Amino acid sequence: MPTASLTETVACIRPVDRTWLARAQEHQLRLTKPPGSLGRLEEIANRIATIQSTLTPTIHRPRIVLFAADHGVCAEGVNPYPQAVTAQMVSNFLRGGAAINALAQEAGIELEIVDAGVAHDIPDTAGLSYRAVARGTQNFCVEAAMTRQQLDAALLLGIETAERAVDSGCTLLGIGEMGIGNTTTASALTAALTGLEPNAVIGRGAGADDPCMARKRSAIERALTLHKAHLTGPFEILERLGGFEIAAICGLCLGAAARRCAVLVDGFIATAAAAVAVRISEPVRDYLIAAHRSTEPGHGPLLDILDQRPLFDLQMRLGEGTGAAIAIPIVRAAVAAFTRMATFESAGVSSASEGSV
Amino acid sequence: MPTASLTETVACIRPVDRTWLARAQEHQLRLTKPPGSLGRLEEIANRIATIQSTLTPTIHRPRIVLFAADHGVCAEGVNPYPQAVTAQMVSNFLRGGAAINALAQEAGIELEIVDAGVAHDIPDTAGLSYRAVARGTQNFCVEAAMTRQQLDAALLLGIETAERAVDSGCTLLGIGEMGIGNTTTASALTAALTGLEPNAVIGRGAGADDPCMARKRSAIERALTLHKAHLTGPFEILERLGGFEIAAICGLCLGAAARRCAVLVDGFIATAAAAVAVRISEPVRDYLIAAHRSTEPGHGPLLDILDQRPLFDLQMRLGEGTGAAIAIPIVRAAVAAFTRMATFESAGVSSASEGSV
Repeated sequence: MPTASLTETVACIRPVDRTWLARAQEHQLRLTKPPGSLGRLEEIANRIATIQSTLTPTIHRPRIVLFAADHGVCAEGVNPYPQAVTAQMVSNFLRGGAAINALAQEAGIELEIVDAGVAHDIPDTAGLSYRAVARGTQNFCVEAAMTRQQLDAALLLGIETAERAVDSGCTLLGIGEMGIGNTTTASALTAALTGLEPNAVIGRGAGADDPCMARKRSAIERALTLHKAHLTGPFEILERLGGFEIAAICGLCLGAAARRCAVLVDGFIATAAAAVAVRISEPVRDYLIAAHRSTEPGHGPLLDILDQRPLFDLQMRLGEGTGAAIAIPIVRAAVAAFTRMATFESAGVSSASEGSV
Repeated sequence: MPTASLTETVACIRPVDRTWLARAQEHQLRLTKPPGSLGRLEEIANRIATIQSTLTPTIHRPRIVLFAADHGVCAEGVNPYPQAVTAQMVSNFLRGGAAINALAQEAGIELEIVDAGVAHDIPDTAGLSYRAVARGTQNFCVEAAMTRQQLDAALLLGIETAERAVDSGCTLLGIGEMGIGNTTTASALTAALTGLEPNAVIGRGAGADDPCMARKRSAIERALTLHKAHLTGPFEILERLGGFEIAAICGLCLGAAARRCAVLVDGFIATAAAAVAVRISEPVRDYLIAAHRSTEPGHGPLLDILDQRPLFDLQMRLGEGTGAAIAIPIVRAAVAAFTRMATFESAGVSSASEGSV
C-alpha cells in the first residue's frame, strides 16, 4: 500500500462512534461485579471497545516505538548529560540494556527503535530503523529548528511507522523517545501551544541543576521572542521549536488515529508531541490514552489539551516509553476483564437488584 | 515439614536487613538512567531486593490467594447483595468467570481459591481448597464473631497457605478476598484498630445505598459498644469483630513474613487484615506492599498502620485480589529493570557527572 500523504492521513481521521461507548457501558453492567467496581479499568476497556467498534476488543502485538533524535538547543547548555549520550543510549537500546528493554521484554511488548535524527555516530546499527531526517535539529535560539521539508519528512516517518505496525496486526501502539535536551524542546512547545510562561512549563528533566534550569528558561524565552511572529499554528510551532523525534511521534499519533489504532502516550515529551497532533486534528484525542503523570510541570497543561487523566503516577521521569510499558499490562487487564468475565446470567450469580438476605 | 504453630511463626518474623537497602540504592545509581528517574519502580525493586537479601531478586511463580467466607453481620441488612452471592462467586472463581480470573490469567499469575468459611453450599468444588472454619461467622452485633479456637484455625489456615506457596517457589504473594458483608467487618476492625468513629471508616462497599449505609453504621456502633471491654489487642479484635477470610489473610501475612516472602496487599479488606498482622508483629510491615488505593474511606487510616503509599489509584473497589493482580506486573517490571539493565560502565554511556557538551 502506498503511504498516504500527510493531507490524506489527516483527512482519514474520524471521531470514534460513540454508540459503541454506550454499548460497552451496558455490557459492563452484565458482568459479575458490582457496577463500576473495576473503576478506570472499565473506562479503558470501554474506550478500546469504542476505538475498535466491537464488544470483543483485542490487544494484539502491542508495540512501543522509540524515536531518537538530537536537539540543536543543547548548545545552550540546557542538559546535564553530553549530547553524545543520545547515540550511546540508542546503542544501549539495540543491545537490550536500557530500562525500556527490560520493561518491554518482561511484558511481552514489541520494541522498535527508530533513528529520526541522531547527531553522533551509532557504532552498531543492527536492528535500528534508520530514518534520520538530519543529524539533529538546529538551535532554535538562533533559527528555526527544522525546515518545512524536514518537518514533512519527520511527520511522514511517524505516519509510515504507525501504518506498518497496524498492518502487522498491532492494535495498541506505545510511544517512546530519547533525545538529550528534549525536555527543553517539549517545554518550548508547551509554552507555544498553551501561552503559558516558560517558567511554568520547565522542570528538572533528567536532573538539571539550578544554573542549568536558568539556561533552559533563558533559551526558551529567547526562542519564543525570536519566533513569535511565526508560531501561528501546530505545523509552524513544530517547525520552529520542535525536534525530529517529536515530529515523528506527532505523525505516529495522526497515522494511528487514521487507522483507528489506540495509542498509549508516555510522559511529558510524548504528550507534547501528541498535543500537537490534537491541534492538527481534534479527533486524534479519541485514540490517545495517557499512561502516567510525569513529574515535569508542563505535563498537566498538555494533558488538558488531550483531555486525559493519566492512569498512574509512579514518579517516573525517564521517557523511552517506560510509562507506556507499565500501562500496557493495565490496558490488557482491562480488556481481558471486559471480554472474558462471565455475566450474572451465565454464572448464576444474583445481582444487587435481587435484594439482600 | 510440620506447620509451625502461630507462636513459632510470629517468633520467626525478623525485620529486613537494611544494609541490603543501601546496596540496592547504590546499584540503582550504576544503571543507565538518570538517578531516581524510574521513581517508585526503583523503591519497589529496592524493597524486593532487601526482602530477598540479594542484588539479583526474582519474581517467581507469583500467586494470588483468594480467601472466601461469610459474615454473620449480614443479618443486619448491611449489603445490597444476598449472602448466597459469596458461594455463587466462589463457583464463578472456580469456573474462571470472575474479574480476578481474567486478570490473573492475562498476567500469568497463579490463583488459589480457599473456602475459609462460606455459609451456603458451593455446587461444584473442583479446584477449591476447602478449609472452612465454620459456615460463616456469628453476628458480631449480638456475640463474638468467632471463638478463640476458630480464630486460631483461621490464622493457621493463612500461615499454612503462605508456607505451601513459598515451598512451591513463589516469591510474591497477592491477597484477595470475597465475602458478602466484609466491608462492614473491615470497617468495624478499622474503627477498633484506629479508635476512629464508625462514620469515618464506612463507605459504600459494593454499592450500599443510604438506608444500607445507616444500617452499616448502626451495626458497627452497636458492636463496638457490646465488645468494648474485650477489644484489648489484635487477637481479641479479630475474635470479636473479624471474619474467617480476614483472619486467614492476617495469618498469610504472618506466614509470608516469617518466610521472607513479599506480600502484595489488595484493597480495603485485605489491608484491614494486614494491619492486624502488623499489630501482632511490627516487622511484618517490611514484607507488605500496598497495591492500590481503595475508594473506601477507611483505607487511608489502615495504610498509615502499614506505613505504605499504594502504587496506584484506578478507582477500583471490587476486591477479589484485583488490585494485587494489577500491581504484580508493576513489581515484575521494577525487578526486571533492576536486574537486567546495563550499567553506565558496561554500556559505554556517559553519566551526568561527565558534564554537558
